[in-house]
Amino acid sequence: MNQVLDLVGIFVFALSGALVGVRRRLDVVGMAVLAEMTALGGGILRDLILNVRPAAFSSVGYVLVPVAATVIVFFWHPQVERVMPAVNVLDAAGLGLFCAVGTEKALDYGLSPLHAALLGVTTAVGGGILRDVLSGQIPALLYDRQLYAVPAMLGSAVMAALYTLDLHGWPATLSAAVLAFGLRVAAVRLRLRAPLARGVTAE
Amino acid sequence: MNQVLDLVGIFVFALSGALVGVRRRLDVVGMAVLAEMTALGGGILRDLILNVRPAAFSSVGYVLVPVAATVIVFFWHPQVERVMPAVNVLDAAGLGLFCAVGTEKALDYGLSPLHAALLGVTTAVGGGILRDVLSGQIPALLYDRQLYAVPAMLGSAVMAALYTLDLHGWPATLSAAVLAFGLRVAAVRLRLRAPLARGVTAE
Amino acid sequence: MNQVLDLVGIFVFALSGALVGVRRRLDVVGMAVLAEMTALGGGILRDLILNVRPAAFSSVGYVLVPVAATVIVFFWHPQVERVMPAVNVLDAAGLGLFCAVGTEKALDYGLSPLHAALLGVTTAVGGGILRDVLSGQIPALLYDRQLYAVPAMLGSAVMAALYTLDLHGWPATLSAAVLAFGLRVAAVRLRLRAPLARGVTAE
Repeated sequence: MNQVLDLVGIFVFALSGALVGVRRRLDVVGMAVLAEMTALGGGILRDLILNVRPAAFSSVGYVLVPVAATVIVFFWHPQVERVMPAVNVLDAAGLGLFCAVGTEKALDYGLSPLHAALLGVTTAVGGGILRDVLSGQIPALLYDRQLYAVPAMLGSAVMAALYTLDLHGWPATLSAAVLAFGLRVAAVRLRLRAPLARGVTAE
Repeated sequence: MNQVLDLVGIFVFALSGALVGVRRRLDVVGMAVLAEMTALGGGILRDLILNVRPAAFSSVGYVLVPVAATVIVFFWHPQVERVMPAVNVLDAAGLGLFCAVGTEKALDYGLSPLHAALLGVTTAVGGGILRDVLSGQIPALLYDRQLYAVPAMLGSAVMAALYTLDLHGWPATLSAAVLAFGLRVAAVRLRLRAPLARGVTAE
Repeated sequence: MNQVLDLVGIFVFALSGALVGVRRRLDVVGMAVLAEMTALGGGILRDLILNVRPAAFSSVGYVLVPVAATVIVFFWHPQVERVMPAVNVLDAAGLGLFCAVGTEKALDYGLSPLHAALLGVTTAVGGGILRDVLSGQIPALLYDRQLYAVPAMLGSAVMAALYTLDLHGWPATLSAAVLAFGLRVAAVRLRLRAPLARGVTAE
């Protein structure tokens, strides 16, 4: 179950990476690199910090799913662009899932709840940051003022709290993931925005 | 003592990260990400290379001090900008401290003096490089010709030399840190500059 | 033998890093940083993922060869530019060697052939990606459509296949390296190009 959800999250993140590649007129190699990094980058960062071999380097599915996403985007990117609102909802699902799973793994490896939540957020947003840096953009997370990291923070915090209360297993993970997912979707719908520093106005 | 100095260095580096965020009109999330990465990035890189769990992920203070710096810059950035000369002196102090502490930790983990000094420099400058890459700029270290890495190299080399002579403990660490600090301040005052390749002129 | 080939690869990659530094009018510190990162970055990434201390941090030659390349480019960059076609051939040799050696090391550490090949490619192209990101460019690998990653992929795949057939030792490594090298040189000569996504045209 977790494995399937994980692969869905990886697939959706890989789609977003490959699409950025198309928009920047990258070739198929560039698309594949962005797809792999977007999908796997957050988890690799998490595992490097936990000092364990990255999960992406022991699972065949983790490597091949982004390849499949690249092929789909290569041939059918106009169609994928057309269903982007749906992809964005799936991306929110990936965000929720990755922050919950990342936090849980960090707690399993003995990190404090605070640090585990921080690493959960890293898992959820790390791939997107790598995608944007590699494609020559300031990470969207840093400036676009949409709430993207904040739902991941709340989901990670809830996951850490539940775990501390000895509530773990997939129902807890799924609850935290659904919470972050819901907050993200609500933030997009309600156009909630992160504030700029006092006195700074948007350009 | 070392812990306090460490937190001061982290605080100052975090201020510089959050200020870059304000200047680039990033939102509060972007400011916090830059503050955390600037303050903790160098040490995280060092610990990944040493193959140990990053110190930032076991200390609560390391994570919360950049949050505090972000809050201060969020509300009072005009005042912080006004005291930037003082912040720059503190930044030089952070540079000195981080290169000395980083080199010492690397030696403790059995690296050769040469490699330990290299890792000390990485500790001192890694966070600033991550800050600049994430905010879409070429790292200042690479082009601005101010001597920033060079004082860290000398401080790290002295730390490695003292350690090899069996002179360690905080007086040695502090001496190396003060040396790098002094060189950095002198370089800024005297406008010392790193040379361009032969025949290349500044734009 | 392997050690010598390794140092040749590091030297050539370091030259390319230092030359990018000159072209971007970076100072000597920037040149040295780019030279070190280009030459050692791929291997460091590989070793971080394998969860072992990076080879670059236990070998003196690995650190000093890029320094030597920086000095050469600092004084004689016009001459080095003039022999760039020869440097490009050496770069192809470095690419071949790094992908074969990287794949072999990953297999030695127990990765599956698929993951070992992926890590071999990372070893070969990681340094160049870091060089481009640090110098403020989209990695050439992603957009320039020259076949650079593809020869590394094929070389890595062949190395993994030979190893799986229990054919290892330096003749196998060298065969895979020569194959990737030959493909890279042929790709440049024949102007083979990676395709853009369907319907996308080059600017």
